[in-house]
Amino acid sequence: MTKGRLEAFSDGVIAIIITIMVLELRAPHGTDLAALRPLVPKFACYAASFVFLGIYWNNHHHLLQAVRHVDGNILWANMHLLFWLSLVPFVTDWMGDTHFAPWPVALYGVVMLFAGCAYFILSRLLIARHGADSPLARAVGSDFKGRISLALYALGIGLSFVVSWAACAAYLVVAIVWLVPDRRIEKVLAE
Amino acid sequence: MTKGRLEAFSDGVIAIIITIMVLELRAPHGTDLAALRPLVPKFACYAASFVFLGIYWNNHHHLLQAVRHVDGNILWANMHLLFWLSLVPFVTDWMGDTHFAPWPVALYGVVMLFAGCAYFILSRLLIARHGADSPLARAVGSDFKGRISLALYALGIGLSFVVSWAACAAYLVVAIVWLVPDRRIEKVLAE
Amino acid sequence: MTKGRLEAFSDGVIAIIITIMVLELRAPHGTDLAALRPLVPKFACYAASFVFLGIYWNNHHHLLQAVRHVDGNILWANMHLLFWLSLVPFVTDWMGDTHFAPWPVALYGVVMLFAGCAYFILSRLLIARHGADSPLARAVGSDFKGRISLALYALGIGLSFVVSWAACAAYLVVAIVWLVPDRRIEKVLAE
Amino acid sequence: MTKGRLEAFSDGVIAIIITIMVLELRAPHGTDLAALRPLVPKFACYAASFVFLGIYWNNHHHLLQAVRHVDGNILWANMHLLFWLSLVPFVTDWMGDTHFAPWPVALYGVVMLFAGCAYFILSRLLIARHGADSPLARAVGSDFKGRISLALYALGIGLSFVVSWAACAAYLVVAIVWLVPDRRIEKVLAE
Repeated sequence: MTKGRLEAFSDGVIAIIITIMVLELRAPHGTDLAALRPLVPKFACYAASFVFLGIYWNNHHHLLQAVRHVDGNILWANMHLLFWLSLVPFVTDWMGDTHFAPWPVALYGVVMLFAGCAYFILSRLLIARHGADSPLARAVGSDFKGRISLALYALGIGLSFVVSWAACAAYLVVAIVWLVPDRRIEKVLAE
Repeated sequence: MTKGRLEAFSDGVIAIIITIMVLELRAPHGTDLAALRPLVPKFACYAASFVFLGIYWNNHHHLLQAVRHVDGNILWANMHLLFWLSLVPFVTDWMGDTHFAPWPVALYGVVMLFAGCAYFILSRLLIARHGADSPLARAVGSDFKGRISLALYALGIGLSFVVSWAACAAYLVVAIVWLVPDRRIEKVLAE
Repeated sequence: MTKGRLEAFSDGVIAIIITIMVLELRAPHGTDLAALRPLVPKFACYAASFVFLGIYWNNHHHLLQAVRHVDGNILWANMHLLFWLSLVPFVTDWMGDTHFAPWPVALYGVVMLFAGCAYFILSRLLIARHGADSPLARAVGSDFKGRISLALYALGIGLSFVVSWAACAAYLVVAIVWLVPDRRIEKVLAE
Repeated sequence: MTKGRLEAFSDGVIAIIITIMVLELRAPHGTDLAALRPLVPKFACYAASFVFLGIYWNNHHHLLQAVRHVDGNILWANMHLLFWLSLVPFVTDWMGDTHFAPWPVALYGVVMLFAGCAYFILSRLLIARHGADSPLARAVGSDFKGRISLALYALGIGLSFVVSWAACAAYLVVAIVWLVPDRRIEKVLAE
């Protein structure tokens, strides 16, 4: 089984998720700059989710580069990841509409945590399929960044009921951790 | 004629159908967990339809793996399948909004039944094109799962006017039947 | 210049156009079959537009099969076609909402007529690029079906102000003309 | 790292952006031609944005043709471009709804200016990766059209507070500059 359609379908779903979020940024009725002010939290949420989905697409792209074979379990592990990512527009919208209220911020973290777990499961299944000494296994390694992200999401969920902005800061740290380019897979593949 | 664009177009349409359903999960006005409660039936319907569309994509992927040639009739048989799948967001939404009322549950089954028939027609046309002793024909075989699914959908449609939850259970059995990985095509292709 | 991305982008746009139309089929508030009755004209329009867009995708697929080279002009001729197709959801919606009123029915024909002209321009540019004796030129031939379609759309536009159902019948004849499979390109390519 | 998925993902995102804008062209309640009159500014904005996005897709297509390698930085530079393009439906909608009021027209220019800068950054990163004497570097050259576009967007932003129609004219000049086919990359690649 080839990985071509798995990549194409994932590209399609992530492209749609990342784009339909903008449908919730509705044009204001006013005509001046002040009319945009109420949209600022929604815009911030949109930009943040765009970055998170971009990170997932980037990591998915890197991960699949090193993949040789896929099977039925891997197709479903990928679908499971796409399910959690598909809920991002919903939680983004709720968080933006409620101006970062505790429960929406926590739910945002929950969806991100589940997406992170789904990504972790997918990468483990792929490594199991390719062998512990495959280029894929060496490229993913101990997945330190992935583990730290899950911890930060869990921390953010807890913080959201205390200080919701601190939760957002925890999520932001995850984004920064990933935006620093990850050369592991590129390096191993280049060898 | 190559199958590349048939796969790409089907991937695109299924990716969009599976994703736009989330647009109907509108963010609630409240800011606490109770505000999410009215969304529970809609969310359950969304998750179920996500799984059903995932099953169709998986099966479509497996089926097309074994395909060598396509022609005009096959393109239209595929379009026919996509038509019924495109109605899934509508029936999902109606079923969720009406909290599993009899008619919406029945209509959900009708759309699923027609999609199942369309898939059956597509697979028969593909087998006719490739010959009864082709790897494709052996991989699809008697399509026991497909036939049982159609029967379960028909049962569900009937049940929906008696006990609508029993109809949902019938649909759920279909999903479980398919989620158990189907190794037939993988096996035949590996030979 | 390769045609791969032209196909991929066109597949994406047509897949989205064909799918977002279903967003206008909003779930009714009622829970019985009668609640669906007001949706019948909208559903009929949706099904018709699905078929028309399917025809365009099929023809586009066939046409591009025989293409070897593309250039900047061809990219824009293709974009021009996609522009008119992108208006199909709008006119479909207006025609369905107004229960086939004269102006909406006429505008539907106008959009279809412009899409047909755009397709004609695209095919002529492709033939000019490949030469009058190329397989592509022989496959498209005099494009009798294309010319008859444009005439039928023009007839439909005129009829819509007299008897709007006769206009719909004219559009339906176009669909039937194209649904009868077109083996020209398949035949020429098989040679 | 191959460029295939970068192209596929960009195609997907641009295809969705260009298509979902039509969802804001809502069918009017009236049934005659007069009912369409209030939609004229929205339609003009839609057509303009369709052309601008078409230009970006065309240029992106041409640019990527000459690309051999991509890396993590290039993936993010591309994502940055897609972010600004994803805001086009929002500003298009606001500009159309407010009948070309000064602030919406200025914001349209701002989004276009940032998209132009993002495209410039992407092309510079690609050239840095391929070397100053690569076919890609020669094909892009000094990017005169790109620089003139940025200047025209800046001019338009300033003009929008004086005469908003003059700002629109400045944006229109950008479109015309790019619609005149750009044979540089095609020429260099053909060599």
